[in-house]
Amino acid sequence: MSQLNIVAIFTVKPEYDKEFRVEFKKIVEASRKEAGCVRYDLNQDTKNPLVYVFTESWASQQAIDEHNVTEHFKHFKAFIDGKLEGRQLHILKQLF
Amino acid sequence: MSQLNIVAIFTVKPEYDKEFRVEFKKIVEASRKEAGCVRYDLNQDTKNPLVYVFTESWASQQAIDEHNVTEHFKHFKAFIDGKLEGRQLHILKQLF
Repeated sequence: MSQLNIVAIFTVKPEYDKEFRVEFKKIVEASRKEAGCVRYDLNQDTKNPLVYVFTESWASQQAIDEHNVTEHFKHFKAFIDGKLEGRQLHILKQLF
Repeated sequence: MSQLNIVAIFTVKPEYDKEFRVEFKKIVEASRKEAGCVRYDLNQDTKNPLVYVFTESWASQQAIDEHNVTEHFKHFKAFIDGKLEGRQLHILKQLF
């Protein structure tokens, strides 16, 4: 089973932006400690500061499955509920 | 001027998918040779194979500007014209 990459795009409701900064930092720091995590970065769109993009790499689908049941991911998932204008998730295989 | 990351999402019209594979490979190989290119990868969405995602990192905005006037980028830009269902571009700064 080879590496999988994830791009997740969040458009945050403005009233929650400050809270998101705190939660984003927490989930980045916790996720990077996971054994199957190859890369876990959070980016901000330079044109629209309410758009945040996770660029992630995982050793395998199993690593993603394990991530999805961690306390920090479950906490983050509960936190974002109702606080996003939009959300887009791409699970990717690298071609070139 | 610090590093900038780019996520570009292309949804390809099915009739052009084969041609895109050839062109994607060419622009990846040529772009990686550019001095300011830190990372230039092409991914395919595991759920929708007509969705392709570039994940790029550039040393600076100047490096992106130089990339945008290269022959290989201008060729690719002309090639994609009229061949996409959708296109999304995010120029990003890494936060965490």
